[in-house]
Amino acid sequence: MLLNSFRRASSAWGARGFSSTCLRRGPDISRKSRVIFSGIQPTGTPHLGNFLGALQNWVRLQEDSQPEDVLIYSIVGWHSLTLPQNPHALAVARREMLAALLAIGLDPKRVIIFHQDDNPHHTDLSWVFNCITPVGKLRRMTTWKARLATSRNAKDESEVDESMLNTGLFTYPVLQAADILLYKATHVPVGEDQKQHIELARDIGDNFNRTFRDLFPLPAYIATPTRRVLSLKDPTSKMSKSSPDISSRILLTDSEKEIRTKIRSAVTDSITGVTYDPATRPGTSNLLSILGACTNEEPAVVAKRFESKGHGDLKADVADAVVALLERPRTEFERLRGEEAYITRIAKEGVEKAMVRSGATMREVRHSVGLR
Amino acid sequence: MLLNSFRRASSAWGARGFSSTCLRRGPDISRKSRVIFSGIQPTGTPHLGNFLGALQNWVRLQEDSQPEDVLIYSIVGWHSLTLPQNPHALAVARREMLAALLAIGLDPKRVIIFHQDDNPHHTDLSWVFNCITPVGKLRRMTTWKARLATSRNAKDESEVDESMLNTGLFTYPVLQAADILLYKATHVPVGEDQKQHIELARDIGDNFNRTFRDLFPLPAYIATPTRRVLSLKDPTSKMSKSSPDISSRILLTDSEKEIRTKIRSAVTDSITGVTYDPATRPGTSNLLSILGACTNEEPAVVAKRFESKGHGDLKADVADAVVALLERPRTEFERLRGEEAYITRIAKEGVEKAMVRSGATMREVRHSVGLR
Repeated sequence: MLLNSFRRASSAWGARGFSSTCLRRGPDISRKSRVIFSGIQPTGTPHLGNFLGALQNWVRLQEDSQPEDVLIYSIVGWHSLTLPQNPHALAVARREMLAALLAIGLDPKRVIIFHQDDNPHHTDLSWVFNCITPVGKLRRMTTWKARLATSRNAKDESEVDESMLNTGLFTYPVLQAADILLYKATHVPVGEDQKQHIELARDIGDNFNRTFRDLFPLPAYIATPTRRVLSLKDPTSKMSKSSPDISSRILLTDSEKEIRTKIRSAVTDSITGVTYDPATRPGTSNLLSILGACTNEEPAVVAKRFESKGHGDLKADVADAVVALLERPRTEFERLRGEEAYITRIAKEGVEKAMVRSGATMREVRHSVGLR
Repeated sequence: MLLNSFRRASSAWGARGFSSTCLRRGPDISRKSRVIFSGIQPTGTPHLGNFLGALQNWVRLQEDSQPEDVLIYSIVGWHSLTLPQNPHALAVARREMLAALLAIGLDPKRVIIFHQDDNPHHTDLSWVFNCITPVGKLRRMTTWKARLATSRNAKDESEVDESMLNTGLFTYPVLQAADILLYKATHVPVGEDQKQHIELARDIGDNFNRTFRDLFPLPAYIATPTRRVLSLKDPTSKMSKSSPDISSRILLTDSEKEIRTKIRSAVTDSITGVTYDPATRPGTSNLLSILGACTNEEPAVVAKRFESKGHGDLKADVADAVVALLERPRTEFERLRGEEAYITRIAKEGVEKAMVRSGATMREVRHSVGLR
């Protein structure tokens, strides 16, 4: 997940859990409107892990939202600079991520979709937050140590020299807090690994409120218990854009034939029969997990259908399900990625809507701190 | 200098030295146009130390500039947030600093004067630079340690807990590099204590040029050897806005009577006669230094005129000189600070001009890094 650590993939189960407990309520006149914010880094062509995680969840949130809810999804380009990027590839990925968000069914009439780096308020608020956030708090974040290890190709955190860490990798949780609080978000659905960042955002918001004036609602972390989609070739690690083996992942752009080939060659095990046991049978369990995500079932429930069958049967069913799941998004993505003028217009309209909200917040922030 | 550590006061001598060696050249057709950038924090009413340091120097640079030179002076509000501020006082100081810059003779038709925090490109570029600057480089900056001690009211740096340092105080040299490089500044006149920050800006610019493309000229540090204006009450420390004793400093708003009273009560010593010896006679030497700054003479030369005279004669002459020096700026400042609409218009026009330049740079930067 080289490019996607801001918004880690959350599983479909997590999404369903979230939807059913939090959004699928009956009408409730006392219910305040929610502002839901999430971000995703431009990761090039999204893969199945992204789709069954963050992206499908975003669509469910859209479908389950009430008219008074505000949903804001941001492609967080500034965050992608914290690790070295190929500028040309990043530019393509940045544009295609917007096409992908539309392709999977997000409706720009119902949700705000925009490029974070098109909106100057994010780095402005990040600066204000830098000035009220002790470095000790950032040093306690565990994510940057892991990212630093990744960026240095080190085996673990103890191998890397902290002083070589780039400052962006150290301070990006502050930018992330600004991303969220700029829209006075009340709810942030992210994976477990991002929980400490939401807590930091709450902490920073609370600190601002106490230092200046009560401006920011403290955003709630919404747990989306993740069933991670794992690599088809090394099911001990997550499905990742950065793996050198392209057959380890299924891309949104893969043809039916490519999908079937990749799933047929997925690593399983030599144990007879199909059971769900992630610890001892990671490959088999990963396929059950993917199938369950496609059919909205628990993997253990899925496994029961294959008690008397083999890996071949399982793989055939997984391939059918993934092909069916991705067909419409893939077709839409292929169509939309060519429509440059349309994508540009959607990006422009999105950031304009975002800036109406963020601009109002920044006027209040500037007034509060004395830069008016 | 609680509010003014970005641009420390440089003495009039320094200004003259800079002007004569760098700008008072004859016409030279091979001479490339210079882009001179400097910044000052909104410090409330400027005092004599600010005036004889940074501000008078800025006016000299304007007077000595060639038509093809570009001079950009920024009131760097974002930097002032790195230490706790009273928001109301900061808002007043921010507005009055612009009035002060006009009052001392800066001409918005010849130089670009603007509020840094009105231009969103500063924090945007700062973020990009964060992502290519190792934290180890910032840790080697000595200034934040001193500022941290100041902010904690600690006697020295060893007393303060680094983890309590706010992140802005740690990363502001990166913002300062963005301030400078955003305009492709070629020359940055600042005091000796800021030299390491200019070196960091060169370092960051060079790193960007090597990583992406050759975009930034590396700005030259222009030494402005400072004869610091010291407190009238404690001539072992600088004249400072933050000293509790208001008679320790002369403000741009002081009346003739106030100026004369403050200088009459300035701390000197009980040694007979007047000699220039900063180490053993700091108070007397400070007065000679102030008088020399007003008359464009070395303090030791000034001292010769008082060989057979006493402190009373010296103080009378210093008071006459300071009253004469500040009369026009004071009158102008009093007039301009009331003209809110005019000040607002100048600020607006200034940031528009600044953004034409910074916007062009940011388009190049975004294209270079892949956020396009």
